[in-house]
Amino acid sequence: MENAKKFNVAQKLIQSHLVAGEMTPGDPIELRIDQTLTQDATGTLAMLSLEAIGLDRVKTEVSVQYVDHNLLQIDNLNPDDHLFLESICRRLGVWYSRPGNGISHMVHMQRFGRPGASLLGSDSHTPAAGALGMLAIGAGGLDVALAMSGETFETAMPETFGVKLVGKLPDWVSAKDVILEMLRRHGVSGGIGKIIEYYGPGLADLTAMDRHVIANMGAELGATTTVFPSDEEVKRFLESEGRGEDWAELTADDGCAYGHHDEIDLSTLVPLIAKPSSPGNVVPVSEVEGEDIYQVYIGSSANPGWRDFAVVSDIVRGKVVPPTVSFDINPSSRQTLETLIADGRLGAMVAAGARIHQAGCNGCIGMGQAPATGQNSLRTVPRNFPGRSGTREDSVFLCSPETAAASVLTGKITDPRSLDMPCPQLRYPEKTVVTKTMIDAPPNPHESRSVVVVKGPNIKSLPVFDPLPDTLELPVILKMGDDISTDEIMPPGAKVLPFRSNIQKIDDFSFERIDTSYVEHARALRSTTGHSVIAGDNYGQGSSREHAAVAPRNLGLRLVLAKGFARIHRQNLVNYGVLPLVFAEPKDYERLETGDVLIARDLHQTLANGGDVILDIQGKDSISTRHGLTEKQLAVIVAGGFINWRRKSLAAGT
Amino acid sequence: MENAKKFNVAQKLIQSHLVAGEMTPGDPIELRIDQTLTQDATGTLAMLSLEAIGLDRVKTEVSVQYVDHNLLQIDNLNPDDHLFLESICRRLGVWYSRPGNGISHMVHMQRFGRPGASLLGSDSHTPAAGALGMLAIGAGGLDVALAMSGETFETAMPETFGVKLVGKLPDWVSAKDVILEMLRRHGVSGGIGKIIEYYGPGLADLTAMDRHVIANMGAELGATTTVFPSDEEVKRFLESEGRGEDWAELTADDGCAYGHHDEIDLSTLVPLIAKPSSPGNVVPVSEVEGEDIYQVYIGSSANPGWRDFAVVSDIVRGKVVPPTVSFDINPSSRQTLETLIADGRLGAMVAAGARIHQAGCNGCIGMGQAPATGQNSLRTVPRNFPGRSGTREDSVFLCSPETAAASVLTGKITDPRSLDMPCPQLRYPEKTVVTKTMIDAPPNPHESRSVVVVKGPNIKSLPVFDPLPDTLELPVILKMGDDISTDEIMPPGAKVLPFRSNIQKIDDFSFERIDTSYVEHARALRSTTGHSVIAGDNYGQGSSREHAAVAPRNLGLRLVLAKGFARIHRQNLVNYGVLPLVFAEPKDYERLETGDVLIARDLHQTLANGGDVILDIQGKDSISTRHGLTEKQLAVIVAGGFINWRRKSLAAGT
Repeated sequence: MENAKKFNVAQKLIQSHLVAGEMTPGDPIELRIDQTLTQDATGTLAMLSLEAIGLDRVKTEVSVQYVDHNLLQIDNLNPDDHLFLESICRRLGVWYSRPGNGISHMVHMQRFGRPGASLLGSDSHTPAAGALGMLAIGAGGLDVALAMSGETFETAMPETFGVKLVGKLPDWVSAKDVILEMLRRHGVSGGIGKIIEYYGPGLADLTAMDRHVIANMGAELGATTTVFPSDEEVKRFLESEGRGEDWAELTADDGCAYGHHDEIDLSTLVPLIAKPSSPGNVVPVSEVEGEDIYQVYIGSSANPGWRDFAVVSDIVRGKVVPPTVSFDINPSSRQTLETLIADGRLGAMVAAGARIHQAGCNGCIGMGQAPATGQNSLRTVPRNFPGRSGTREDSVFLCSPETAAASVLTGKITDPRSLDMPCPQLRYPEKTVVTKTMIDAPPNPHESRSVVVVKGPNIKSLPVFDPLPDTLELPVILKMGDDISTDEIMPPGAKVLPFRSNIQKIDDFSFERIDTSYVEHARALRSTTGHSVIAGDNYGQGSSREHAAVAPRNLGLRLVLAKGFARIHRQNLVNYGVLPLVFAEPKDYERLETGDVLIARDLHQTLANGGDVILDIQGKDSISTRHGLTEKQLAVIVAGGFINWRRKSLAAGT
Repeated sequence: MENAKKFNVAQKLIQSHLVAGEMTPGDPIELRIDQTLTQDATGTLAMLSLEAIGLDRVKTEVSVQYVDHNLLQIDNLNPDDHLFLESICRRLGVWYSRPGNGISHMVHMQRFGRPGASLLGSDSHTPAAGALGMLAIGAGGLDVALAMSGETFETAMPETFGVKLVGKLPDWVSAKDVILEMLRRHGVSGGIGKIIEYYGPGLADLTAMDRHVIANMGAELGATTTVFPSDEEVKRFLESEGRGEDWAELTADDGCAYGHHDEIDLSTLVPLIAKPSSPGNVVPVSEVEGEDIYQVYIGSSANPGWRDFAVVSDIVRGKVVPPTVSFDINPSSRQTLETLIADGRLGAMVAAGARIHQAGCNGCIGMGQAPATGQNSLRTVPRNFPGRSGTREDSVFLCSPETAAASVLTGKITDPRSLDMPCPQLRYPEKTVVTKTMIDAPPNPHESRSVVVVKGPNIKSLPVFDPLPDTLELPVILKMGDDISTDEIMPPGAKVLPFRSNIQKIDDFSFERIDTSYVEHARALRSTTGHSVIAGDNYGQGSSREHAAVAPRNLGLRLVLAKGFARIHRQNLVNYGVLPLVFAEPKDYERLETGDVLIARDLHQTLANGGDVILDIQGKDSISTRHGLTEKQLAVIVAGGFINWRRKSLAAGT
């Protein structure tokens, strides 16, 4: 514990939800979960898991299912899922946010976010709610399903990374530039194992929605989550949403300590931009100014506030974009859309040439608005991993709404400070529209039990996985480098995501961006040995998409041996019974190649002992590996995954 | 000619554009084309054809390329096409209507439509412009490309089908019900070989955009086109679009005659609905009232006017749709969207639960908004062919905006007359927004010649086809029934249409809804004999999609033997060198089956003689067939298609 007497906000939040464990960084802790959030791309599987487990009704304070990812309906798959989710929410006592109501993170913050509460969400950008002084953590869909069933959430106690903000943002620089500055300084793994906590006088200049921008993209730093204090601005925000009664103050104790620390003088920031193809590839806009662009994309959970659209509207008002530029507006929510309609700002963007898309995540996750081959796309979204836009040979830049709007007018990357106009001054909407009608409360438990769940032809029961054998002999069929994202393990986008409720179908796409022969090799070994893969550091970064674990598992993956894992993906592997091991000596990575066979004997006892796991390599020396798994995680892996484990524990009445 | 002295509107329009032939119904005529319209799904191929022909600059009064079909960008294919079209339009002197500017038919009528002009469009709903007293005909993309290159358009002189309108529409009944009544009376082939001409006192109650609704869906009757007189209402319409100077009166001579005739008393009409899965399957709404629905879809070229959205808005204002119903608004154009934003009506629909999609054709052609499996979808679109929505097992109804809006509120099919509210009274927008900025004029010829055309990796040159051999021995690999639509020959929708500029790729989808083994069979025969197919009556109805001709041709199709052909598809077959023959004795259809081999000898001379074409059937008696092809059509088929033919004629300087 960093300071036993004086707590920072992160420590206060953890302490108030601690069920088991000690608050020592790195040690396992178990947390009570007050609220859950699922989106449709991960939620269908979560709901199928709850069905497999046999749950009658969720046990949280509030659980909400959002439909924001799979809104493109090019065939029956997505609408069939929507009807499945709507009906199973009524069955299990879950709130349902309808298709087109908006992106989960923003809507949840507006309708349900509560300072001091804990939120587990099956989406890696769940930490956005940290803007309200919540403990909001992203996890796999199965973890969230288990939390809905009353289980605690287990994780490693993070360190707190304090970031003091001083000064005031200059004109044309906004919250997005703050988080881009963090990425410029600390890179995409700078937050791993940490909760980032912002504090200091600079907060006065950041609205709750600005803080959402910063907390949201904390995920790109690899952080467990991001927190802000719950202060007067949070109170104002909740009051503007008609929920003033949900406010409670939550601030750090004077003199509290932070395990890591940094300071940002907001007044020194300039417009920043992340170049292709990593959010960590940040430079000043001025360095790439003048490059031709094909597209400007406004939207996503990374810049979701009314202000982030209004400032664009005020910049483009009365002008017209060039003919070769696609100007795509993706409203973050129905409430944002209604506000922009009411205040005339949507009309101004349409008149300037904007294409208006339905409210939701859309192109941010490759569901529409893909750019032309090799052409530059400027986006206010959080991620620019290769191909995430839907176009394999893409060239996506991440920037603020101000930079995006300046660039759409010129057709070239443009520093907004070069515009010949005063900087729009916007903090809150002139008139707040509060949209509640598109979130449906579940019926009472009695009515719930008679709900008939609607399952379209593509919604299939989960496959049953076998327990972990005591001996493994696993050919290595793939060797990868560092920073492999879940997008590369299981691609996002319109071709793949519609099969999220059909594991036997979605596994066809596993690793297709890395090795198109992987699926064939894995299938050939599935019924005999199964297989393993080798990876570098930070394996499984990015989206929390658990299909990146369950689909390879369904193809026979039993073991991933890596230099290091991203937190959520590692847990997803555990959840589905895949053993995640790390090299005791990272240089052993060099000794292994595709075609080697990894042999583990007497595995159950070895794992339980907690020491190194020695793998024999057929025809080579053995190597040492470590697992660092908790007792519970080991029990889950040995059982063949969390569903097997939880079904047993429920049957045993625990 | 129906009356040599006194002409109806259709005859006046044809006479003023007649270059060759006599105005005797059924006889071939050649028409001068003033304007052309291409959309992106057919336009890319048209542009590639012009490139193959070697054209320097279009020779029409005005040619316009619209981007309204392929707006869903899930990968690079659609945006690559947009950039290709934008650049080749500048190269060839064509106007370019940007993605999201709106549906071609409505935008063309607003920006370029001119009473008395002729318009050839590569979209089957081109006749919508007949609302202004134009001669607007749908054709294959290649026909339109040829018209752009200065060629005349050849067709059979249609009969005129006069429809006298009397009386006034009751409350809750609108233009859509008029055309549904025509379909109820005359069915989907009731207009074949005819121009439908509306006249009479009932016109006073129909605005230009109401007439657009009726002219648009004349395509569903199989009509060559539909015309209305150019009267004071057309003048008012053009003035409201800032184009009063383009108006000219065009009315029928008193006492003119019509080859066919019908009369509709508008005051007797009730709300009508076309049940799945044909626009001809029309019944009163009251017959299906109470059936549960999944979706209400507002949009498309069949109900594109501001009024058709405004009436929906006024019906749903202040109410909220049920959670299981998807309420999809597809604005017909940027101008419609801007008007609905400005007058508060878009906001009212969003508040009621609407999902707002980008302006364009969208789900009408299966590009988004697909319904859930087997669930009812009520749409204001023109067509409900099986699977056109994108969902294979769909259940699509066609109805008026009033019926759709009433039903979205109840979640069941609802007769709007049962609503407890006064009928909204709307004819024109309170304030007209005119949007011109998103249509780009081409540069002058000098600048055009230096334009570099942008071709993405999926835009390929057209395949070169061989001339027609003098002897054919063609196995029959498919036998089909009546009314096969082009949707069944080449499916629409997001999976297929992106490959429209890549014939070698799109041919994989040929006939996939009828026989999934067709492609394999065709490929096996391609380099040896080629193949033939057998069809019933009205073969190739529906969309003008010429990929339904060129893709099977690329797979080796040389001959289609049918009981009868839909006009546009027959011409598309000719254009790509496929011989369309009809049974001299329709009962011979019964004698043929898959696996038979059709043998034609001495074919060039036989075709030129004009009489019956005798086909020997291997191991069976021979059968008699007819072609009815003009001299020019024969020359084109013998050359192996129009591109070969026109390349030769240009080289010869003609």
